[in-house]
Amino acid sequence: MKDYFEKLINEIESGLVKGIEPQNGILGKAMHYSLSVRGKRLRPLLFLTLIDAFEKNSLKYIDIACAIEYIHTYSLIHDDLPCMDNDDFRRGMPTVHKKFNDAIALLAGDTLLAAAFEKISFFDMPPEKVVNILKILTHSIGKNGMAGGQALDLEFNKNKKLIFKIQRKKTAELIKGTLLSGAEIVNMKEKDKDILEDVGNTIGIAFQMADDLLDIEGDEQKVGKKLHKDKINKSPNSVLYFGKDFVEKKIETSYKKSINMLKEINIDFPPFLSLIKKMVYRDR
Amino acid sequence: MKDYFEKLINEIESGLVKGIEPQNGILGKAMHYSLSVRGKRLRPLLFLTLIDAFEKNSLKYIDIACAIEYIHTYSLIHDDLPCMDNDDFRRGMPTVHKKFNDAIALLAGDTLLAAAFEKISFFDMPPEKVVNILKILTHSIGKNGMAGGQALDLEFNKNKKLIFKIQRKKTAELIKGTLLSGAEIVNMKEKDKDILEDVGNTIGIAFQMADDLLDIEGDEQKVGKKLHKDKINKSPNSVLYFGKDFVEKKIETSYKKSINMLKEINIDFPPFLSLIKKMVYRDR
Repeated sequence: MKDYFEKLINEIESGLVKGIEPQNGILGKAMHYSLSVRGKRLRPLLFLTLIDAFEKNSLKYIDIACAIEYIHTYSLIHDDLPCMDNDDFRRGMPTVHKKFNDAIALLAGDTLLAAAFEKISFFDMPPEKVVNILKILTHSIGKNGMAGGQALDLEFNKNKKLIFKIQRKKTAELIKGTLLSGAEIVNMKEKDKDILEDVGNTIGIAFQMADDLLDIEGDEQKVGKKLHKDKINKSPNSVLYFGKDFVEKKIETSYKKSINMLKEINIDFPPFLSLIKKMVYRDR
Repeated sequence: MKDYFEKLINEIESGLVKGIEPQNGILGKAMHYSLSVRGKRLRPLLFLTLIDAFEKNSLKYIDIACAIEYIHTYSLIHDDLPCMDNDDFRRGMPTVHKKFNDAIALLAGDTLLAAAFEKISFFDMPPEKVVNILKILTHSIGKNGMAGGQALDLEFNKNKKLIFKIQRKKTAELIKGTLLSGAEIVNMKEKDKDILEDVGNTIGIAFQMADDLLDIEGDEQKVGKKLHKDKINKSPNSVLYFGKDFVEKKIETSYKKSINMLKEINIDFPPFLSLIKKMVYRDR
């Protein structure tokens, strides 16, 4: 399994910077930098391992995997900006606006978002499939998805009733979109897709809760970004509002529920299941 | 012709805010605000009148016209931000970050961009056509188009050789993309599309030059935004570097060249031609 993941990661890393020339002006440099800083690459890995669970030919779809990581990277660059979370470090390296400047970070994010949809639009696949994946992803990052979640986060104002809604929109929607994009590639049955959608929501929210735990008790060196910020920023961190025990228990139940649902739709590919586990039991 | 335009504009205005609920949180409010401030709606009008030049059924495609205006609006919101042009007024009204705040303006722009591609992806049309329009538009706003032009603008550093390249990328690419999207709808022949592409470039650059003239000698009341900023900001304003006479002459030649090319591909629909004229001879 280690070799399998290593191979996928290598393909993702080279796919991400393909066509993005760092020598090509400051915008190219900033985009290249943002994509070269090693991340977990969770979303592309989820997408590719889900395909391999069915067809074992995931590398054919590496461009779509990379497009999904572009979307995630765009969201990180914009979130880190001074007017948002104002973060100086990400994955142990200076954030894009610290390395370059705010204007370039803004544009690098914008351009990655456009590049994501450009990559998918130009992908050599029946146009119905291209359109279906675009429907899934544009929806999952829009006002009812990731961006809407960010806005709710800004409006949070200690209203703890909003926390799980924020987590679903801000984090789970793109995870769900990633899984459903994979499902589209492997022609999953509609009723199985419904169950997978439920997995995406459940595990996506649990993933955000694991991130909340990290902020409270993680090790900054290991995590690569500034921690213990949620309390100061009055962020909707579930641990602050529901307590560590509640959150750990909820993560446990969500994980078990997800594994059961995956069993129901006959997904038992070990690398995929190991990713699901890694999402919620994170090294802190 | 006045009635014809009035009808199109009304459809555009109501299409733009369809599904964007101002009561739905601060993000919805900000998006709604940015779309309600009356603009020229040049790009959707170009798209619709080009379709009417062939098929007289442009209103069927109002959603795509509105998606193109979303893209333009996103670019204005982000351009106006303090880290970019730092503009307080646009179309005579406070810019989105002045009316709300920087974070919400950032997110409103991001969300409009996602919404543009969402609208097109969900548009009821053969998927090949949807994909072709997405190819055109994602390309025209990416690193080789609008966003790339913005980045070059930031790097300009009084290098006058870059001015027309910046104008082409920053402004002409989306105009060209708008025209080519219309051409896709009406099944224009490939060789006619090549000529239309040339029109897009030529008239797009001339449109930016007309904007440069406005900045130098326009009336702020009429234009609705702060003028005479390009000199202070050291922006790549063609009038500052090539002189008013040169620019006026170049606009004239570009306009005539465009009209001739349009004749060549049998486009003589008066509303479309009148828009092309209005783009370059602007009320100042």
